[in-house]
This record gives sequence, structure tokens and C-alpha cells, in this order.
Amino acid sequence: MRFRNVKNKENIINNSTSFIKEPQKYRGKWHTLFSNNNKICVEIGIGKGKFIIEHAKKYPDINFIGIEKFDSVLARALEKLEKKQPNLYIIRLDAKDIEEVFDHEIEQIYLNFSDPWPKKRHAKRRLTAHEFLKRYDSIFCGEKKICFRTDNMTLFEFSLESLSTYGYILKDIKLDLHNETEEDLITTEYEDKFVKLKNNIYEVKAYKKE
Amino acid sequence: MRFRNVKNKENIINNSTSFIKEPQKYRGKWHTLFSNNNKICVEIGIGKGKFIIEHAKKYPDINFIGIEKFDSVLARALEKLEKKQPNLYIIRLDAKDIEEVFDHEIEQIYLNFSDPWPKKRHAKRRLTAHEFLKRYDSIFCGEKKICFRTDNMTLFEFSLESLSTYGYILKDIKLDLHNETEEDLITTEYEDKFVKLKNNIYEVKAYKKE
Repeated sequence: MRFRNVKNKENIINNSTSFIKEPQKYRGKWHTLFSNNNKICVEIGIGKGKFIIEHAKKYPDINFIGIEKFDSVLARALEKLEKKQPNLYIIRLDAKDIEEVFDHEIEQIYLNFSDPWPKKRHAKRRLTAHEFLKRYDSIFCGEKKICFRTDNMTLFEFSLESLSTYGYILKDIKLDLHNETEEDLITTEYEDKFVKLKNNIYEVKAYKKE
Repeated sequence: MRFRNVKNKENIINNSTSFIKEPQKYRGKWHTLFSNNNKICVEIGIGKGKFIIEHAKKYPDINFIGIEKFDSVLARALEKLEKKQPNLYIIRLDAKDIEEVFDHEIEQIYLNFSDPWPKKRHAKRRLTAHEFLKRYDSIFCGEKKICFRTDNMTLFEFSLESLSTYGYILKDIKLDLHNETEEDLITTEYEDKFVKLKNNIYEVKAYKKE
């Protein structure tokens, strides 16, 4: 995602009660932070935060953790969170280090409009590449669940094959999500732009037994 | 597929040396008919036959069997086969009876532009439904391979999920086959029309261990 620099981003981040500075400290004990045993879902790459903030508001009995690696984007998401949402925390993390932060405690991963890394030699950097699926293995508790959404056809093809060859079962595949779904979809800011341009949005829900 | 009636279809069918009247007789011993041990591929629903006839010509070391249930379509395919193609036979069969005709001897199944049976209550009739995948199980020798191509988005979504939940691994997924492939594709008559109209063609190659 492209984004502009945000002035005072460090102040915004450091002053937010929704931001966890040292997430490694909670590895294996995120439930203690939420003070409940509700299931925990993460979104990797939250962008400006609309998707995960709306989820947290809609589903108060589910805990959410938003992961983002860029400070400018983090700051904008945290700005949106004026009122503290008790079931939502945001952390700064590069997804390749995700195993340092979670240990068999995540119910579901959301990947929305991830960087397509279009060059073949960069395929390993795509968040649905086997290199990443392997990292996710140890963060899940119970059945592994990944919900993946993109507007990039090539990345979607790659992701279906990558998930399937890694042992995930593919369900609820949508090749034109917004024209096929009757329910109210929670979208990302990026997605809203693309839907206005009548671009196809693709989605798959993938499951893997323990 | 819609098709017009063909006059003299019975004559055409009965006089063709490429047509096998009682395919059940060859169950478990199709190799004897071809007089070799080359691998055997079937296409279920050959339509006017272009796809399988061109495959047979291009790959003389592979045996092909074309399956079609409608006489009018069968006759048109057989008309095309003026010159006998030694590695190709055509049979009349409803796919639901496929186990009566093959027994652990098929290498690969091609499904091209199968009837989408759009109503939910007819989903079991789709050639990629679990009901059919189960029938195919006992006709394969070794690893199961299904190559599925369609212009119907909803059928494609259904088929990806059906194949995946049945245990097939999905590879080479193409959501816009004709704009993504550099090789010379062998197409069906039906497909050629749709490509001219700039409709997307979808394809997946699915594999399942023995």
C-alpha cells in the first residue's frame, strides 16, 4: 500500500493506549492482556485500520490484534481509535517475525490486500507463500483459519495454489465478492476505492486441521 | 451445451470405426483395444469433439477416450473424425455410469465447459460435485488428475471448493486463461466463441494421491 508520511507519528503511537510497544512480552499470554479467554484473531497489515476496528466494534466477544510494520500507517489507524476499544490492540511488527510474538493462541488470520510482490523472485515475500504459512503454523491454536482478500488476480491465483499445496482446504471462494455477497461486508479503505472502480475483489477462507 | 438435431445421426454413429458401442466390455482392459500400454486420458462431455481430436493428433503416445451422452453431439464429433485416429475412441455414456466402463486404468480426466446446473437443488449433477468425484475414484490408476475448464464463474468457484474439500490439491489456477497463457492452447468449439466475446475462461489442474 502507498501512504503519505504522518507528522507526529511517533507521538501518536507512543500516546495511544491501544498500542503495545513490546508485543514479544505477551507471547503465549495474550489472553491475560484482554483479561478473558475469548478467541483472538489477527490481521496482518492493517493499513489505516478500518477493517479491524469495525470488526472489533461489531464482535465485542472476539479479541483482535492488528499488525502493521509501517509507522505512518500505524499512526493513522491509531488516530481512528479515539475511543479505546477493549477487545483491540495494535502492534508494530514485520510478519516474518510473527512467531516471536504469538505461540499457539490465535484462532484466525486475516490477510487483506497484501503486497502482491509481482516479481517472481520476490514470491517468497508474499504473505501467502509457504515461507509465511510455515511461520503461521505455530501461532494457531486448534484448526488453522486464514481469510484472504485481494483485488490482485495473479496474487489470488498464487495464494489459492500456495494454500492448497500447503494442506489448507479452500472454502467460500468468491471471484467477485462484492457482487456475490448479500451480507454487509466490512471492508478496508483500499478496498472501497477499488470497488468504486468496479474492480473484482477476490476472497477465500482456508482451513487446515491441527 | 445447446445443440441442433443431426439427421442420420444413427447412421453416422453406427458406421464409425472410432465409436465403441458396448464400452462396458472393455472395462479393465482398454489397453487391449489400443494395443499398447500408453496412458489413457478421458474427456467427459466432448461436445463437437475439437478438444479431444486435436489432443489425440498432437499426442500420439497418449490414448484418448471421449465420452458423450447425446447422440446429436456424438455424431458431429464422429463426422469430424473422417480419418481414423488410432489413439482415440468415442463412447456414448452418462457420466454417472462411468464406473461400469473403467476400472483403475485412467490417467487423467478432462472436464471442459460442463453443464453448470445453476440451481442449488441440482448441484449434485455438476460433474465436479462430490457425487461424481467419488465415481471417478475407482477409474483412476495411480495419482488422480482432473483438468477442469469453464467460462462459468459460479461453477468454477463451486468446483475449486468441491475438489479441495474432497482432498484434491489445486494447481495452475488460471482466472483468465487465454490472457495468461503463452503456449498454444487446444480449445473447444464452445470456448472459441466465448473467447471472441472476451469472456474469462477459468482453469484448474487438480491432483489427489492414490
